[in-house]
Amino acid sequence: MKRFFIILTLPLLLISTSTAQPLTDSIKIKQYKKVAQQFVSSALKERKGYDALKNLCRIGPRLSGSRNSLIAINWAKNKLIEMGSDSVWLQPVMVTHWERGDIEQAGIINSKKFNGIRLHISALGGSIGTPPEGIAGRIIEVQNFEELKEKKDSVKGKIVFFNRPLDQSLLNTFRGYGEAVDQRVYGAIEAAKYGAIGVIIRSITTKYDTVPHTGVMHYVDSLPKIPSVAAGYLDANFLSRIIKEDPNLKLNMLLNCKTLPDAKSFNVIGEIKGSGHPEEVIVVGGHIDSWDVGQGAHDDGAGCIQSIEVLDLFKRLHIKPKRTIRCVLFINEENGSRGSKEYSNFAENSGEINLAAVESDRGGFTPKGFNIRTDSSRIIEKVKSWLPILEKAGIDWIRKGGSGADVGRIKNARALFSYVPDNQRYFDLHHSANDVFETIHPRELELGSAAIAILVYLLSEEGL
Amino acid sequence: MKRFFIILTLPLLLISTSTAQPLTDSIKIKQYKKVAQQFVSSALKERKGYDALKNLCRIGPRLSGSRNSLIAINWAKNKLIEMGSDSVWLQPVMVTHWERGDIEQAGIINSKKFNGIRLHISALGGSIGTPPEGIAGRIIEVQNFEELKEKKDSVKGKIVFFNRPLDQSLLNTFRGYGEAVDQRVYGAIEAAKYGAIGVIIRSITTKYDTVPHTGVMHYVDSLPKIPSVAAGYLDANFLSRIIKEDPNLKLNMLLNCKTLPDAKSFNVIGEIKGSGHPEEVIVVGGHIDSWDVGQGAHDDGAGCIQSIEVLDLFKRLHIKPKRTIRCVLFINEENGSRGSKEYSNFAENSGEINLAAVESDRGGFTPKGFNIRTDSSRIIEKVKSWLPILEKAGIDWIRKGGSGADVGRIKNARALFSYVPDNQRYFDLHHSANDVFETIHPRELELGSAAIAILVYLLSEEGL
Repeated sequence: MKRFFIILTLPLLLISTSTAQPLTDSIKIKQYKKVAQQFVSSALKERKGYDALKNLCRIGPRLSGSRNSLIAINWAKNKLIEMGSDSVWLQPVMVTHWERGDIEQAGIINSKKFNGIRLHISALGGSIGTPPEGIAGRIIEVQNFEELKEKKDSVKGKIVFFNRPLDQSLLNTFRGYGEAVDQRVYGAIEAAKYGAIGVIIRSITTKYDTVPHTGVMHYVDSLPKIPSVAAGYLDANFLSRIIKEDPNLKLNMLLNCKTLPDAKSFNVIGEIKGSGHPEEVIVVGGHIDSWDVGQGAHDDGAGCIQSIEVLDLFKRLHIKPKRTIRCVLFINEENGSRGSKEYSNFAENSGEINLAAVESDRGGFTPKGFNIRTDSSRIIEKVKSWLPILEKAGIDWIRKGGSGADVGRIKNARALFSYVPDNQRYFDLHHSANDVFETIHPRELELGSAAIAILVYLLSEEGL
Repeated sequence: MKRFFIILTLPLLLISTSTAQPLTDSIKIKQYKKVAQQFVSSALKERKGYDALKNLCRIGPRLSGSRNSLIAINWAKNKLIEMGSDSVWLQPVMVTHWERGDIEQAGIINSKKFNGIRLHISALGGSIGTPPEGIAGRIIEVQNFEELKEKKDSVKGKIVFFNRPLDQSLLNTFRGYGEAVDQRVYGAIEAAKYGAIGVIIRSITTKYDTVPHTGVMHYVDSLPKIPSVAAGYLDANFLSRIIKEDPNLKLNMLLNCKTLPDAKSFNVIGEIKGSGHPEEVIVVGGHIDSWDVGQGAHDDGAGCIQSIEVLDLFKRLHIKPKRTIRCVLFINEENGSRGSKEYSNFAENSGEINLAAVESDRGGFTPKGFNIRTDSSRIIEKVKSWLPILEKAGIDWIRKGGSGADVGRIKNARALFSYVPDNQRYFDLHHSANDVFETIHPRELELGSAAIAILVYLLSEEGL
């Protein structure tokens, strides 16, 4: 099957590349601007996405395998049906199923001065629990894996405290996050190499408060699995200070989180069939799962709602797309990516042409631009020629860059896009109890919907 | 004096125009980028502006003529001295002095169903008060001055309710504000023409809540002066509904606001002398006065702090500017513009060269771009060539456009700039009790300081 479709789609790809011309027709540009303004006006005035996100957030957090995640999946399916999508379906997939449990504590013992003080912590996603009596160990603080290696002879039996903060001096908070997140993801592996019994990390956040930020962490089978938690920013400051004052103090950690057998779940898919080239598919998506703290309002409730609203904007403005527009709400982005693997397998083998995919997973903030991932400089030039139309929703640039964790797996797409909103506030909230609906601004969220809708509309009209 | 200086500066202007070449020297660009990153890193990491704004906001609102405004002026003067400015001075100016008083009420009377219900209102700045017993009248609702004119025969003895909302469908909230604000500024004049006894307007806001938004309004001596207030957005909805249900109801308004004789006040000025061309002055400024509700955190505490921080960034990074950098905190922007008139008079007659002026008065949000006002397309091209450096602070564009209410008066400057941050949230807060420090995001505010500092640095190094 697969080989057959490769042969079939190859000529189409060649045709497409040769027609990837920048948009210069001024009458067309004018018409497109008019439609773009309709998207913007409808989104900003009606605030339907904002209202929908409120309802999604009311369900609560939506970690893969949880009851809430299934409620949210069902809610999104019904939403796509109600708005009159041409078809809506659930794509089954087995997902990671980790549960935090109801106990997570970390407190100071073995210290005259600091005994009994508790830290604000959050178990990292995927962490094992502790024995019922907890674990306790002295703390060794390091900034990075190099320092850990240097101190390897002092690690045994201790809890490793990874304390390197997100670098606030960078304009791009995603870069700061990317440079700090190894501690969270691989900290337990590195620490276990040298005999550590647990890991505590400084939360990877831009906010100076006590709210811990969770996120995925990994183990390898060849090393002992050790429990791992994140401490709030100010708690990390405090911990760093008191272990200097009293190096003999111990941290007592008590967690009853655990990984259960994989659970059945679903990607949520809804689409409007293209009127001219129904076989050419434009995916727009976000991930329906969230961490189990907060409400996943920005990460990635916003992206899901924006993806749903793209379809709804076409419907309520009675715009029939030439190419098929498919909303895909991926499950399990946070701790397994099973949803995106499942969808990309399907997309590779479906016989459809994966024209483009747009991901929104950077929060519901004011639009800045779109990253585009493609090897074709002609496609980039073509998309850049759409900027005067995209500007209607506040899009200032198109840049070559990464797409996103979910759509990035759709390998045979001609171009992959990541919607890039302002990122200054994102890591204040990301993976924490602060990621709630109240932090969503209606105009910011809705402009994102409009910006993505305009891009999808132009992809649908102009192809690639 | 004035003529003399025109003759003196003319040749310099010509020289300058002929040297307004785009920046192409890649070594220079690299060096500038390095300095730009220093500004960004220092601002984001140290958050000194954020801390300073907290202190400024603690003083409370700073309406011209008020005690608070003088405390704030003194605070800012000391701030500029402490950081080591080469000179700091207060420029005296007489300012408008309006006081809200301690009574402002608007309630429904003459209605069985709605009697006694009170609206959330705020007297407009400059409004007269009412007699001690208040005023009461039936309400006539209109959307605009044309409709008012059509209904002119029904206006006499009534309170005119201007109910046209800020158009939420526009990307640019400043445009929506500009299209709605005539009701607030000229409503009392238009209504008085036809014998109205008072005015109530729908708050010009992007937020759907009950918080009223004040702002300046005008009278003319040839017409009766009538009291004018703004109602919260939801209060306006409510009022519009109940007058349809009961057209005989009356609104009772009670205000004891009043205009006092002009008061003595000051612009706050601090500068770092240029090492190469001290006679060429680059102004960076905001306005130190604010409305008397909230704390004027975004409007324009943010702009003042950013202007102060530009000087502080040069000082703490030990960067000696080639041209003089002058921070001007204008008084009385909100209800008289006396401060900017005073400063521009001074600047025109000082014999200095007003190279450029940059205003920050659009809130402390994430940087988007700079508007530039100049007749010289060469200057625009030159400044646009600095974009790769300005991008370090998130500046995406330079556009020809308006400068600002304060620096806009400096007529003989070669170029006037307005710092343009994201504007989606600004009119949620603008002129209301919600404009408080808690709505300031440290990274957003600090990036603004860095963006302006980079522009000022390039102006200082490269001239215009």
